[in-house]
Amino acid sequence: MSTRRQPVLGILGGGQLARMLALAAAPLGVKTLVVDSAADACAGQVAPLLQADWTDYAALERFAAEVDVVTFDFENVPAETAQRLAERVAVFPNPRALAVAQDRLAEKTLFRACGLDTPAFVAVDTREDLDRALAEVGAPAILKTRRLGYDGKGQFRLRSAADADAAWAELGAPARQHGLILEAFVPFERELSVLAVRGRDGDFRTWPLTRNWHSDGVLSLSLAPAPDVGELQARATELARTLAERLDYVGVFALELFVRDGVLLGNEMAPRVHNSGHWSIEGAVTSQFENHVRSVLGLPLGDTAARGLSLMFNWIGALPDAAPVLRTVDAHWHDYGKQARAGRKVGHATVCAGDAAALAARAGTLAAALGRGAQAAPALALLGR
Amino acid sequence: MSTRRQPVLGILGGGQLARMLALAAAPLGVKTLVVDSAADACAGQVAPLLQADWTDYAALERFAAEVDVVTFDFENVPAETAQRLAERVAVFPNPRALAVAQDRLAEKTLFRACGLDTPAFVAVDTREDLDRALAEVGAPAILKTRRLGYDGKGQFRLRSAADADAAWAELGAPARQHGLILEAFVPFERELSVLAVRGRDGDFRTWPLTRNWHSDGVLSLSLAPAPDVGELQARATELARTLAERLDYVGVFALELFVRDGVLLGNEMAPRVHNSGHWSIEGAVTSQFENHVRSVLGLPLGDTAARGLSLMFNWIGALPDAAPVLRTVDAHWHDYGKQARAGRKVGHATVCAGDAAALAARAGTLAAALGRGAQAAPALALLGR
Repeated sequence: MSTRRQPVLGILGGGQLARMLALAAAPLGVKTLVVDSAADACAGQVAPLLQADWTDYAALERFAAEVDVVTFDFENVPAETAQRLAERVAVFPNPRALAVAQDRLAEKTLFRACGLDTPAFVAVDTREDLDRALAEVGAPAILKTRRLGYDGKGQFRLRSAADADAAWAELGAPARQHGLILEAFVPFERELSVLAVRGRDGDFRTWPLTRNWHSDGVLSLSLAPAPDVGELQARATELARTLAERLDYVGVFALELFVRDGVLLGNEMAPRVHNSGHWSIEGAVTSQFENHVRSVLGLPLGDTAARGLSLMFNWIGALPDAAPVLRTVDAHWHDYGKQARAGRKVGHATVCAGDAAALAARAGTLAAALGRGAQAAPALALLGR
Repeated sequence: MSTRRQPVLGILGGGQLARMLALAAAPLGVKTLVVDSAADACAGQVAPLLQADWTDYAALERFAAEVDVVTFDFENVPAETAQRLAERVAVFPNPRALAVAQDRLAEKTLFRACGLDTPAFVAVDTREDLDRALAEVGAPAILKTRRLGYDGKGQFRLRSAADADAAWAELGAPARQHGLILEAFVPFERELSVLAVRGRDGDFRTWPLTRNWHSDGVLSLSLAPAPDVGELQARATELARTLAERLDYVGVFALELFVRDGVLLGNEMAPRVHNSGHWSIEGAVTSQFENHVRSVLGLPLGDTAARGLSLMFNWIGALPDAAPVLRTVDAHWHDYGKQARAGRKVGHATVCAGDAAALAARAGTLAAALGRGAQAAPALALLGR
């Protein structure tokens, strides 16, 4: 029997997404090599870690030589880094798709070209642009950096045109570097996301729509499958497919959506596995992490159907006591192995059940035990508890 | 927020069991450190590996200093090694339980003391003992080494007393070192195993009985929950509980059972996670690997209920083509990252479904695509296909 060589997945960024990708890659016989500038990046607990900056091209050269395919834990890798790697090794998603998703203006322009409506938006490069944009978009509105924003960072909410100076004081500097975008504030009814995966052969699948709740701009709670979505599921799937095909996208991505007057609006696209898909580890036949590994390596994709209902609690800043979660039937604990820090995503837990009543009972009891009643409340209300 | 220190699980042996334990430990925030004499031990792909022999006490001293608790991937660790470690750090299961499970004579004696019948057995230390044992036990019978046997190794099957010389020629040498045992060959109706876990606080749980089929002494196929077990489930659970309590056992173990005339007979006890429990990764609410990690670390145990039915195919020697498995709905691929070698366990796949008919259809189609019809046949017959 001949010596076999296992495929090696290279991941740019060594956070919890890389960690969960590596854990999903192992049963597939796929080794992982992670690059991160931090020696204690949490993915390094489960896979070899190459410590390097994004512009350490000598190190990235060594990395490229050791891996079969490169993917991302972190989408804000400099375009030049992705491009240089793509000259040496297969990179999925491709650098063009990454570039579109990195730029709020390009992203929203693409959404509209694909038939996905968005809140009104105008590019803002100067203080004068901001006044013109406010006149066009109206208030309230949100001024955002075009690049490098995530989890509510790089954003300023304007209640009226009177806030323009304060907004500019905060975001004028990034405006000079990367540009800004002013978006109308949409009083949406709910936030949904659709997780999708496209294979190297074009096979395309979506997981059931997820209902999301944010707190201070950071995801707090996800319920999947989102209840009462009706024809929005088919619509979201078709939009995601159109987007993926336009970008020749390979891998998992998340499309964050608002629902206003029963219509989907595009908020943003995350060109990677996404926090709102963490429930799929236990709550779907194949998780977003496994299907991302399968897709970028050219393996057949797995079934994306949900098993019952799942409610995911995000742990921000510090972990609560694990014991009540471990004691809850079909609740699953995910500690990312990170140090506590204000605003940091340090773990999550997913509670699963066969139906809404059982999920509400289980999650309600757990939330009470954890002192997380407020965090769980919007989902429990929806589940009829 | 203060610096946290994650618990570290030390595992003696770095094979696929250690690999799957490490993968289950990570989401719990538990780091793993593996000891193995082989630099390429497959658990080393997902956790740090300390390369050392069982008698390299200086290395084991360093190992003990770095871990919070020690457990086993491999039960034939020398008793002195386990004992020395137990003087420095918590070791689960405890060395006494390990010693009993390492010795077929002690193990079967304990089974009887716990009310679990066994095939007739007699200790054999000399050639003369063998003749006396054959007269007592009758033929056919199986001569086995008391220690260090697994997967059918260290066994000789005697069709009649005329085979005694041939048996002695093969096993006389181990007899002088560790002793032998002659067991009556039991024409059993089926082989079952019960996987059980006991926590540090005495909490005790079993997974549903598993039906097993072996080929050349190596597990080939497992179906869980085993169909048509009736009251055998309650009986197996009570026997496993009695055994665990007698040994003050902490962790997961497997009790391998024969059924003859509807009665359970004890075959052997594996003091660790076990191949016949691999289906629990996808087929149970909490897997044997996760519950073993929870138990040895003193965390609350998870629910052991099955989700639907699961059929596990063992891959021995070399892996089949993964693609048909990856294309099958709710089939799960496990490549251990090992080199192919005759007789070696290199991976497994588990096919899950909500009911027997769906499982039979799914597994039957998959087995045909893999050219594994013969391997699947006994389970498919039982599932009514």
